[in-house]
Amino acid sequence: MLLDSISSPLDLRALTLADLTALCAELRDEIIRITRLNGGHLGSNLGSIELIVAAHFVFECPTDRFIFDVGHQAYSHKLLTGRRKIMENLRKAGGASGFPDPSESVFDHFIAGHASTALSAAVGIAKARDLKKLNFRVISRLGDGSMSGGMVYEAMNNSSGLSNFIVILNDNQMSISESVGSMRTYLSRLMRSKKCLILRKRFRNFLNLMPTRFAKGLESVVRNSLAIIDGNNVFEELGFHYIGPVDGHNLQDLIEVFRNVRDIANYKPVIIHAITQKGKGYKDAENDITRLHGLEHSSSPRYTDIFGNKITELAESDERIVCITAAMKNGCGLVEFEKRFPERFFDVGIAEEHAVTFAAGLAKEGLKPFVCIYSTFLQRAFDQILHDVILQNLPVRFIIDKAGFPGPDGKTHAGLSDIALLQNFNNIVIEAPSSRRDLEDILELMAADIPYPIAVRFPKATAPDHFRPSIVPGNSGTLVISTGDIGNIIHRVIDRLESRPTIWNVRSIKPFDFDTLLNLSKTHQKILVIEEGVFGGVSNIILEKLIAEKLFNILRKIEFISADKDSVQTASREEQMNPMTLKLTASLE
Amino acid sequence: MLLDSISSPLDLRALTLADLTALCAELRDEIIRITRLNGGHLGSNLGSIELIVAAHFVFECPTDRFIFDVGHQAYSHKLLTGRRKIMENLRKAGGASGFPDPSESVFDHFIAGHASTALSAAVGIAKARDLKKLNFRVISRLGDGSMSGGMVYEAMNNSSGLSNFIVILNDNQMSISESVGSMRTYLSRLMRSKKCLILRKRFRNFLNLMPTRFAKGLESVVRNSLAIIDGNNVFEELGFHYIGPVDGHNLQDLIEVFRNVRDIANYKPVIIHAITQKGKGYKDAENDITRLHGLEHSSSPRYTDIFGNKITELAESDERIVCITAAMKNGCGLVEFEKRFPERFFDVGIAEEHAVTFAAGLAKEGLKPFVCIYSTFLQRAFDQILHDVILQNLPVRFIIDKAGFPGPDGKTHAGLSDIALLQNFNNIVIEAPSSRRDLEDILELMAADIPYPIAVRFPKATAPDHFRPSIVPGNSGTLVISTGDIGNIIHRVIDRLESRPTIWNVRSIKPFDFDTLLNLSKTHQKILVIEEGVFGGVSNIILEKLIAEKLFNILRKIEFISADKDSVQTASREEQMNPMTLKLTASLE
Repeated sequence: MLLDSISSPLDLRALTLADLTALCAELRDEIIRITRLNGGHLGSNLGSIELIVAAHFVFECPTDRFIFDVGHQAYSHKLLTGRRKIMENLRKAGGASGFPDPSESVFDHFIAGHASTALSAAVGIAKARDLKKLNFRVISRLGDGSMSGGMVYEAMNNSSGLSNFIVILNDNQMSISESVGSMRTYLSRLMRSKKCLILRKRFRNFLNLMPTRFAKGLESVVRNSLAIIDGNNVFEELGFHYIGPVDGHNLQDLIEVFRNVRDIANYKPVIIHAITQKGKGYKDAENDITRLHGLEHSSSPRYTDIFGNKITELAESDERIVCITAAMKNGCGLVEFEKRFPERFFDVGIAEEHAVTFAAGLAKEGLKPFVCIYSTFLQRAFDQILHDVILQNLPVRFIIDKAGFPGPDGKTHAGLSDIALLQNFNNIVIEAPSSRRDLEDILELMAADIPYPIAVRFPKATAPDHFRPSIVPGNSGTLVISTGDIGNIIHRVIDRLESRPTIWNVRSIKPFDFDTLLNLSKTHQKILVIEEGVFGGVSNIILEKLIAEKLFNILRKIEFISADKDSVQTASREEQMNPMTLKLTASLE
Repeated sequence: MLLDSISSPLDLRALTLADLTALCAELRDEIIRITRLNGGHLGSNLGSIELIVAAHFVFECPTDRFIFDVGHQAYSHKLLTGRRKIMENLRKAGGASGFPDPSESVFDHFIAGHASTALSAAVGIAKARDLKKLNFRVISRLGDGSMSGGMVYEAMNNSSGLSNFIVILNDNQMSISESVGSMRTYLSRLMRSKKCLILRKRFRNFLNLMPTRFAKGLESVVRNSLAIIDGNNVFEELGFHYIGPVDGHNLQDLIEVFRNVRDIANYKPVIIHAITQKGKGYKDAENDITRLHGLEHSSSPRYTDIFGNKITELAESDERIVCITAAMKNGCGLVEFEKRFPERFFDVGIAEEHAVTFAAGLAKEGLKPFVCIYSTFLQRAFDQILHDVILQNLPVRFIIDKAGFPGPDGKTHAGLSDIALLQNFNNIVIEAPSSRRDLEDILELMAADIPYPIAVRFPKATAPDHFRPSIVPGNSGTLVISTGDIGNIIHRVIDRLESRPTIWNVRSIKPFDFDTLLNLSKTHQKILVIEEGVFGGVSNIILEKLIAEKLFNILRKIEFISADKDSVQTASREEQMNPMTLKLTASLE
């Protein structure tokens, strides 16, 4: 196996084009095997193998800084940079993270888990390089899906004049499900433009006549040649050289383009528009594109599915219900809703800030907008929630999916801050279901004519079908207060104990039912509050009241068990919860 | 006075062009008079008078939705929509807000105080209109400064195909100080392009031959005519019709363009690029552009000035110090720094998210980036702080200016959440000065080789020069704990009392000095913690510890006085603090 001979990108230099092609095939097999074992992002990783191999062949990572965006393209990069062993346990405790992580390898220069950040980091790295008079290349990779995120434009707006600044736009023509919006249309137009393709041939012929490392003298010639190719496109107008489209699976083309760019990219930022195919080389994958984004095995219905079904049902009888998502149609269970109500479904692309203010606009005109975003990504819209929703008290409905521990996606995807963030607002309601029925009830409430914003948060987990009373009395004199789905885990932990605490699984986080707390506190000597989030969420809501009302008899016996603030390790959700459940059992003994 | 006859925009219909011109002059005088009395944003309001008058003359507000961005252009709009009386007390308690506010008037359809939000709201309003099969126009106004904010692109990306969707780009060629970046360069290029101007003349001649309300039949003709004008520009590529540049002070031109757009704008969104002059019609204003953004009277040095001086001094001896701001160069006191170190100063435009990740990139390469952003705008970058700074533990330095009560800028500008947001992270230090010396000491700490992120927050206020010990003992057995500048106000309040509490003004919010708290708690029967922020900031830091350590002796006697969560009224900072100081004195009696 060629791959066995590669312990660092330097080892690629010894390979011929035929070797590199064979290596790509090996990487493809290896990534399929690893994701079969561990789950993960198959499609985008298969689609970017040649782009990674060619870049490592031409550039000098880690001296040249490779900056990923989201990082769904990093598996082959990891396999080429001495991490084959930990890739065996990809996304598992002790294994490789599914995303670039500087604490894992010096080849991962910058973190990436949220989209559209790479260019901003790259601009910072390039400006620092220039101030320090150093000399390396900054090579960032964007997926076309990230092009809907505003940060990319903020960064492009600040890139002008940067040298040795190369952006590889990996355009597989879809993000998690499919990319949306005018930029997508524009990229497709660029891609299909015959003018571009013909000129591209001219460019190749032109360059083929020249020795490759002729940089200085060739600059103006090549610049002119590029200028012809680019025409008057958006990237050019914003100060970039645009090169493309290029075939992102043709190693020879890629190596040639990268070599030329390496040698000429010293007067202006360059964007290389590479066309790739998601799931390239994997038959099933190419046929089932959406499934490819993340491979998961699931049987019973998840909260996500229950939401998807119920919202579609509710929307049948209320045409004011509309759903908005930010490139999370599948992940948020909205496939059916879109099919049934295409006009009332809005996927705004990776653009959480816009999604929230857009929803505020919809609510302002009397619609009932459900904004469906993962907890970790909703963090991006704190200011929009405050400024556009809360200050106007608009009834925007927030569906916060994947709230809580992130499981295999790891620390960049932790959904542990949503309660802490949202509880800062007076006029918002926050709900957390622990069963199918809970979630359905909550959704009915949310679909009513409420005059305030409301949020529901649930994890990436299956939802129990059974009905369990909110309060299950125990025999130990201790009260455990949990919120939402973590209550089910608490029940499992506690069912094993002989001396069993009362469990009160709270559905409404805000407003919180202090009367019940007061009542229960009378008959319990100890109160443990457990939340799947950082201290400052549920705990803050409870403490604010207890302190303000001077309820010392409760304060004396209350304890909080929260998630550790910013250190989630790659592992399963259950493993990530272990410190909390251990603390709980210790407190119960 | 013509203005006396205008109680709603409908009254404009009776006026001739000469009348409208005279009205603009009256508005100009009125705005100068009012801002002399109350402070406020003079330049941008003077620059947008004709754009507002022409729009109200042609469109039908409030049926047609006028959506402002930031809202620095709204004074003449307010004066034309029945609010002359409350404009007398602009930015004061009981007077008009300096920004559009739906709770103030139905003519203010949507809130605006933070930049780059208008288009997102407008897209939501337009989509809701279409779903409800209603028929009105959505007219949003952007300043060129807002064009650096990513949300604008996220919204443009989602605007394609919208009809009766009109964007007026008020291009005064500067935001608060000056606009930056490639988009600015691009707009200037568009503006100067002779081709555009000549074609614009052709367009006018062409349209002058036609009766104005001929819409349907003219559509394709006009569309073609527009297409010629626009050429291949960025806005066109993103699905907009671009019209411009037009002279934003020529009422006749504006009315003509608006009329044509009103009648043809039913197949594609339109962007009208109007060139205006900040401070138009005010001699001093035109000569002193930066002062125009907000008129303030200030004598002794503010925290801002002290920061500006000290950072310039520190940077003399440490070339790794760099400063980043997001269009707040003047507001953050960086004028001198930029003059002295132009290469180490980065104004990224209104783009807080980019600013933070950009700074993370700079820190990654070993520089010492100081990110200077107002508290209210830093809310935009919560996710970037978490994802790009905290998770990588990069030593980014945050200078959080205008933290605390917003004073006359009102609720959209409240800086009350920063502590609550930042205390969510383990590895960040948060400081709050209450004097010149404090701030200088803190800045020296921040300029050192620290291996973690650090933030300092201070209000828009003058900084006392005197040195006062952190703990000033009292005689009443009560301890008041304050953080940062609010401590000075507490001292003033308490100096009037006979029975005086001990005051401990804490400089380091995180880590918090619990040893001192423990010691002081032994000799005090009551502890009041006062913070210029919402409950969940300093209070959360203290409570987390007290609860975890079961320090009930302290919990029993502690009280928290925090800012009300989301209801700041327009008033002075002191007035906004009144509820808190009243609570304090009540607690002390």
